[in-house]
Amino acid sequence: MRVLILGGDGYLGWPTAMRFSGKGHEVAVVDNFNRRRWVEEAGGDSLTPIFSLPERIEAWREVAGKRVESYVGDIAEGTFVHEVVREFSPDTIIHYGEQPSAPWSMQSVDNAVVTQHGNVIGSLKLLWAMRDLVPNAHLIKLGTMGEYGTPNIDIEEGYIEIEHNGRRDVLPFPKLPGSLYHLSKVHDSHNIHFACRVWGLRATDLNQGVVYGIETPETQMDDRLATRFDYDQAFGTALNRFCVQAVIGHPLTVYGKGGQTRGFLNIVDTLQCVELTAANPADPGDFRVFNQFTETFSVAGLAEKVRHAGGEVGIDVRVDHMHNPRVEAEEHYYNPKHTRLPELGLQPTLLSETLIESVLGVIERHKGRVIPEVIDPSTVWRPTPVGEPSAG
Amino acid sequence: MRVLILGGDGYLGWPTAMRFSGKGHEVAVVDNFNRRRWVEEAGGDSLTPIFSLPERIEAWREVAGKRVESYVGDIAEGTFVHEVVREFSPDTIIHYGEQPSAPWSMQSVDNAVVTQHGNVIGSLKLLWAMRDLVPNAHLIKLGTMGEYGTPNIDIEEGYIEIEHNGRRDVLPFPKLPGSLYHLSKVHDSHNIHFACRVWGLRATDLNQGVVYGIETPETQMDDRLATRFDYDQAFGTALNRFCVQAVIGHPLTVYGKGGQTRGFLNIVDTLQCVELTAANPADPGDFRVFNQFTETFSVAGLAEKVRHAGGEVGIDVRVDHMHNPRVEAEEHYYNPKHTRLPELGLQPTLLSETLIESVLGVIERHKGRVIPEVIDPSTVWRPTPVGEPSAG
Repeated sequence: MRVLILGGDGYLGWPTAMRFSGKGHEVAVVDNFNRRRWVEEAGGDSLTPIFSLPERIEAWREVAGKRVESYVGDIAEGTFVHEVVREFSPDTIIHYGEQPSAPWSMQSVDNAVVTQHGNVIGSLKLLWAMRDLVPNAHLIKLGTMGEYGTPNIDIEEGYIEIEHNGRRDVLPFPKLPGSLYHLSKVHDSHNIHFACRVWGLRATDLNQGVVYGIETPETQMDDRLATRFDYDQAFGTALNRFCVQAVIGHPLTVYGKGGQTRGFLNIVDTLQCVELTAANPADPGDFRVFNQFTETFSVAGLAEKVRHAGGEVGIDVRVDHMHNPRVEAEEHYYNPKHTRLPELGLQPTLLSETLIESVLGVIERHKGRVIPEVIDPSTVWRPTPVGEPSAG
Repeated sequence: MRVLILGGDGYLGWPTAMRFSGKGHEVAVVDNFNRRRWVEEAGGDSLTPIFSLPERIEAWREVAGKRVESYVGDIAEGTFVHEVVREFSPDTIIHYGEQPSAPWSMQSVDNAVVTQHGNVIGSLKLLWAMRDLVPNAHLIKLGTMGEYGTPNIDIEEGYIEIEHNGRRDVLPFPKLPGSLYHLSKVHDSHNIHFACRVWGLRATDLNQGVVYGIETPETQMDDRLATRFDYDQAFGTALNRFCVQAVIGHPLTVYGKGGQTRGFLNIVDTLQCVELTAANPADPGDFRVFNQFTETFSVAGLAEKVRHAGGEVGIDVRVDHMHNPRVEAEEHYYNPKHTRLPELGLQPTLLSETLIESVLGVIERHKGRVIPEVIDPSTVWRPTPVGEPSAG
């Protein structure tokens, strides 16, 4: 396959690039390095020391003997993505190239606009480039389980059969996203669905849960191949952030009651899911939606797991239930289906105490790099009413 | 009320401004004149001679003795809309300020981007301005019935109660929009819903059908107060375009079988609906959706009505079933509910032969201004496969 990976310098993009390259596919990565810039601008940094994209690519060539191409630019701007698609002519496009943080998107009108413009217009330009240049290519788009929100009914994979006043139809599953970032992914899903229905493109939307983990077989081959690992309040996700907090002796920051339940998966399963999806492409005109996670946990349950695993390796972990900066239900029904990837052969790597201990061990090695100031939430979902003290 | 009208120079915006001003409200209009520019760039022009916004405002002052304020700029750019909201401090915002043409949005990647960027980011910046400056104001947003597409079940007003695996919830009605323009409105609806849920804003989304008609009581007060009337393939809507075709002896351009059924309403009912909505605002945190049309017609049925009315005034009207440039079902179930506006007091002005004859009469007066070249469809929804002749 000729695999184009948008966002190929990121947490998931870079390991994905190595995985497909290692399996013998032709791989090109596209990135504008916004993620590196945004984390730095907020005063943070990847826990793991990461190398520049050219250094990574050179290290991969040395270690694996494979060549990965790269294109540096912004897919939402000008004709960049059209030119990349024309030059590389991919048959598979894996699209991680978006602003991925909910808190970051809620921080200001400018961040909201960068998120929705960059994500939605970037994907829209990609769809037009596919329509005009590679209409038979398979788009694998990273969406999020957060597109669904927490409805009071079972969450299906993208579509739901509705019976209403004696008639039936299968329609897109209704969405109740919880941030302007999550909304950008909902907009993407609608645009991509349209491109499949009307232009006959083929696409799979991977509604991914929260990813945890710090290593893949490829990142472990050489220090220069490490992927980034964020733990700050904007770009760090729940379990990863908790593990860092545990190691540095910071209380785990559980928002509110912690009954918020979400789907989770190990980074090695992200790679497995994306590989399975690429090997089993959607039919022309088909817009598939897979819910990509392996198990669900409540935030409080996750904190308890980290507390317990910490105890096993001699760390005394405290849990702090702080005021929830987000607007979300802290107790809710949650039963999302996730059978389509297992049907393709996904073998889940479930969260174990051993895994948490191993993540804690890796973090321990890089402990000196932690910047504690960026951990506590500084973005609130609702503006502070006049007269009330600000949370942040 | 202090009423801010975005898109206040347009087909519906200008009559709305006069209506609210005439009723004694403080009115300001916002426009960037994109609609005038886009129609001209495509070689078209309003059938009715229209005056510049300053001339209109001056004529209205002379005729009605009322002052309308104006702000010229693009709500999607910079901090313009924030500054307008700060300066005018509206309690009611009526938002028509978007690119409104489906064919125009499908014409090129650039048009698609202008449509989705302008519409979605414009509305998003407006929401942030409301959040920060006038959180208690009521947003009346013009959406479209085209957001729903043509599902095989009854279309409800914005939400649907779903029973699924023994549980129930009321969720946003699933959307299957038929163009990148319609998608931009779906994105808007999701963003506005979020702003109500999370920021506590109050909004009403008016999912409007196809508007027809050329005059309102206010536009008839003086020639300089006329509103624009478009009949070209991009900005002209079905009935208006058919009436112009009838008058100039052009066959009515019915796309495909003409079984496409849509909701329609008279321009005077648009004003009535917006007035009723403004007089009965949404509660804080409430995102209401009203389906705004008075009756449904198939495109072929509409053509037949125009043919018949033409006959009554001595015009021999031909109907031409041409290749459908769009991708849409030409036969489908269609039963959209529309009870919420009648519940507020809407008295429908149904389409009558007399009305069509009167529209034909007004068009006859301006017949010499018609540019026939812009009538036939030049935008196709699907790219032409290699080897097939282009439709355009």
